[in-house]
Amino acid sequence: MDDSIFDKAAAAATLMLQASGDDRARWLRSVADALDARTDDLVAIADGETHLGATRLAGEVARTTGQLRLFADVVTEGSYLEATIDHADTATTPPRPDLRRMLRPLGPVAVFSASNFPFAFSVAGGDTASALAVGCPVVVKAHPGHAELSRLTASIVREALHAAGAPDGSFALVEGHEAGVVLVQHPVITAVGFTGSLAGGRALHDLAAARPAPIPFFGELGSINPVVVTPAADAARGAELAAGLLGSFTLGSGQFCTKPGVVFVPEGSTLLQELASLPLPPAQPLLTDSIAAGFDSGIERLLSVPGVDLVSGDAGGPVVVSAPLGAMAEHGEELLAEVFGPVTVLLRYSDFDAVVPALDAVEGSLTATLHAESSDNTDAVLRSLERISGRVLFSGWPTGVAVTWSQQHGGPWPATTSQFTSVGATAVRRFLRPIAYQDAPESALPVALWESNPLGIPRRVDGVLVVGSTPK
Amino acid sequence: MDDSIFDKAAAAATLMLQASGDDRARWLRSVADALDARTDDLVAIADGETHLGATRLAGEVARTTGQLRLFADVVTEGSYLEATIDHADTATTPPRPDLRRMLRPLGPVAVFSASNFPFAFSVAGGDTASALAVGCPVVVKAHPGHAELSRLTASIVREALHAAGAPDGSFALVEGHEAGVVLVQHPVITAVGFTGSLAGGRALHDLAAARPAPIPFFGELGSINPVVVTPAADAARGAELAAGLLGSFTLGSGQFCTKPGVVFVPEGSTLLQELASLPLPPAQPLLTDSIAAGFDSGIERLLSVPGVDLVSGDAGGPVVVSAPLGAMAEHGEELLAEVFGPVTVLLRYSDFDAVVPALDAVEGSLTATLHAESSDNTDAVLRSLERISGRVLFSGWPTGVAVTWSQQHGGPWPATTSQFTSVGATAVRRFLRPIAYQDAPESALPVALWESNPLGIPRRVDGVLVVGSTPK
Repeated sequence: MDDSIFDKAAAAATLMLQASGDDRARWLRSVADALDARTDDLVAIADGETHLGATRLAGEVARTTGQLRLFADVVTEGSYLEATIDHADTATTPPRPDLRRMLRPLGPVAVFSASNFPFAFSVAGGDTASALAVGCPVVVKAHPGHAELSRLTASIVREALHAAGAPDGSFALVEGHEAGVVLVQHPVITAVGFTGSLAGGRALHDLAAARPAPIPFFGELGSINPVVVTPAADAARGAELAAGLLGSFTLGSGQFCTKPGVVFVPEGSTLLQELASLPLPPAQPLLTDSIAAGFDSGIERLLSVPGVDLVSGDAGGPVVVSAPLGAMAEHGEELLAEVFGPVTVLLRYSDFDAVVPALDAVEGSLTATLHAESSDNTDAVLRSLERISGRVLFSGWPTGVAVTWSQQHGGPWPATTSQFTSVGATAVRRFLRPIAYQDAPESALPVALWESNPLGIPRRVDGVLVVGSTPK
Repeated sequence: MDDSIFDKAAAAATLMLQASGDDRARWLRSVADALDARTDDLVAIADGETHLGATRLAGEVARTTGQLRLFADVVTEGSYLEATIDHADTATTPPRPDLRRMLRPLGPVAVFSASNFPFAFSVAGGDTASALAVGCPVVVKAHPGHAELSRLTASIVREALHAAGAPDGSFALVEGHEAGVVLVQHPVITAVGFTGSLAGGRALHDLAAARPAPIPFFGELGSINPVVVTPAADAARGAELAAGLLGSFTLGSGQFCTKPGVVFVPEGSTLLQELASLPLPPAQPLLTDSIAAGFDSGIERLLSVPGVDLVSGDAGGPVVVSAPLGAMAEHGEELLAEVFGPVTVLLRYSDFDAVVPALDAVEGSLTATLHAESSDNTDAVLRSLERISGRVLFSGWPTGVAVTWSQQHGGPWPATTSQFTSVGATAVRRFLRPIAYQDAPESALPVALWESNPLGIPRRVDGVLVVGSTPK
């Protein structure tokens, strides 16, 4: 690894601080346009490296460039700065100074790409976009599963940033395991974004926490995404639920962090019977050899649990297994461990009241889903689903993550390691920290805090939230 | 320690989730009223244990109860929930679901009291107030420096919460070092608030990070609070600055986390000459024996650095020392280490341009202060002060922290360990995490996300921030 990237990133951080929100929005849109223009080339390389298929991959490019443009909008809108002004008050004891606060960029950010989204969670994905959006230089650690794609994407990003006037050093790509370890420990790096495995993520989390000056580690490490089906829902639409579940757990060969990994169904459920008779999609090559090996050993581990039945599928392809809920008492850990790939575990309950205590054993998840009828009393189940997840779905399936203002992609450990989201508008908050200015002359203040509000952004003034009204 | 407090806290967390913001605001105001009513008793005990003086302590009670009432206002105002609604959009590909997001309480929080603010950063201080405000039960680890006061405060808090209808288990007090270690490691605890020493804070930070499921550790660990005086400011008002600095570094016998610990002054400065001739306040007993011992050894360490002169003061009382800026090359670590107590270090520069590189050696601080004249070019110094701190002051002194919407009390490591503040309205964000609800029936949604906005709170709807207009 070329160590000069750190000096360049540090220098870029200072220059990026001076760029306006409009500048940064322009950089992001430049990157989005450049990626859109090269979609065909990018998809061809990505398909060769990931086997995810041209249609899905082209859609993912569009999602990725849409994401870059959303962050451009977020920056322009300006609420994300949390600009707050309290005017001086000489009547209080002691007299209160003029105090103005806003969020500022943390500094250079390390981003670890994921294997399963070679665009949306990779070189130009959500972590990179949200860091650049708020003025943080980015050093991406490429995922070895799509190395050639990473290099091409990086060169497009670099050129587009340069063409739009972003400082040199605002973006860099590194490769190799050792480079990742160096990144997390380097004093110039101020935060880490990571999407990957629990083992790899835990190791990097611990490195970040053990630094002489620890830095925040925003990791997404794994998620079982429980689904609860009530007896009434199963009776009302068991066949429809079976088809929906099948589509969701096999989408992208089950290689989604939001794949429904465990489903609580009533004993003798229509859902299970229907699912057993539905044809499963054919086996597809998984993303990497190690993911394929992990899938195989995960299936083997599941099938070795006493009481586990194979409902559908066979070696190498999509698999549905089932066990009575009571099997959790002895084998909860194996039944609830995430197996990355196209498998889902149906846990059959005899008594719906047993589901809430069972959910207590489920670790933090990105999502939790409830299929119920309006006649069901689901208060207790809902409280459990909220407690263990960051997104609670009703009558839907968790795969598919809309990139919006209100999205929450994060949950209690190990789903993510933070109180923020990695998808959606508020993902930018991860790479910001507040600074207050006390009795500052206007010449020393960032424009967002000038009395006249020239940016026209929403601000809180003397305790009252005021939506910006000054035209830009 | 009575282990049942954890079960009670977990049970309280569930009940507190169901309480309204108005309920929680009422709890906080009940605690504030009860503390105000017992001010005389509280101050008498506190003065006996801390030697901080009745006037200061009575003021601190008022600050503490004002803080509880500010958080009640924050909860009622409702912006802190970050309520966000994106309506379904069937025109997008794929169709976008209805998605509604808000912040919810993390769960039971452990709070470690500070020695130096027996009210404002202790049992009923900012951490406790901000956690209770958002619906998190609190278990306080008492500071041994004011154990009797802690017990009385806790009993007042418990009774006031009970009287206002807060659930049992919403508040508890524990004592002893070992209890603190148990707290940070207990699975029921979801976050830690800590104000104290770097050594103790680092140890607890590392414990929190090493848990099987790590939790956020919001620590405030130490701060040197650099002050920069330009030659022009020294020439224009050196005597005034000397008096201001003297007042600030000796306030509360220098036992403030915002004490100005290092001051960059021009060689031959009026400030230094004036300070040398000003009478220092008499020595006061420090908070604890270990703080007194740490102060003595800190002074000894400073005076042993080659080039360090004693400007004023003597053993046991306030002390001013001085050194040429060049001494930092060999002894920066000793010169810039926080010494808790009434001492400040004047570093004399010959060339103002040498100050920016010197600031690069200053660790993260809560505050950074600039004294300049309008004719000074201070751009580079300002960028450095922003980089190393969370509050930048102009022509003031950092002691005194207004409890307001815009306050920022936090900074880069080791000042604090988070991207939040521990003082001021946004301190509540530490104890919250987002949950999104996808396609939820209104009956399953928290009131804050109902379509009609019955709480009348500010919300972002389809990307547009709308200040609540529905009357309550």
